[in-house]
Amino acid sequence: MVTDTMTKPHQLIASDRVEGTAVRRPNGDKIGHIERLMIDKVSGKVSYAVLSIGGFLGMGANLLPLPWARLKYNPKFEAYELDIDDEELKAAPSFRADKDFDWGDRSQEEALHRYYDIPPYWGGF
Amino acid sequence: MVTDTMTKPHQLIASDRVEGTAVRRPNGDKIGHIERLMIDKVSGKVSYAVLSIGGFLGMGANLLPLPWARLKYNPKFEAYELDIDDEELKAAPSFRADKDFDWGDRSQEEALHRYYDIPPYWGGF
Repeated sequence: MVTDTMTKPHQLIASDRVEGTAVRRPNGDKIGHIERLMIDKVSGKVSYAVLSIGGFLGMGANLLPLPWARLKYNPKFEAYELDIDDEELKAAPSFRADKDFDWGDRSQEEALHRYYDIPPYWGGF
Repeated sequence: MVTDTMTKPHQLIASDRVEGTAVRRPNGDKIGHIERLMIDKVSGKVSYAVLSIGGFLGMGANLLPLPWARLKYNPKFEAYELDIDDEELKAAPSFRADKDFDWGDRSQEEALHRYYDIPPYWGGF
């Protein structure tokens, strides 16, 4: 029906609304928030959500690049949900807030996607 | 060569760096700036860059959703380049800054992509 197409809720979200949104575990514990998104210039695809962790698990002010496909939005929490335990989080690839992740190093990106068991956004290892 | 993969400049850009970046015509005239990006939640693809126009051509403070594929970055200007003339710009689909574009209306999105002659981000009309 035409009406369905006209009235269905849209599937789009604003970048400046994602930035700052909380990231919580399925049990509701807050891990941190989304600092920014990293976008592939050529394909226009979001490759990473950069998770900012302020002292969670005593980890300091670190940034963790998360493959976008690993996050899902939970309307109940009004937050992104990340199912990750302490061990996985502590060992996850991260970088200091005043430094930059080496986004040009494909082998580092491969390791990151293998870590989260997510197919790489560029199509394959 | 492995070294090429390791050292090539990355193809990723940060969402909060895109926001606020100027949009200029090929001749350097400033049209406005990118207010935000609209992202398809399911595919993770950037669908629109929302262009903020502050009084350019006497158009008032309007927002124009531009298909992402229509913009290209020009390092010389440190700005996005949009090849659009006065007539096309004045007639382009826009919305007032205090209102929201009806992102849920697929027929409106179709009209927008036809206007800019860009294939729709969801795959086809």
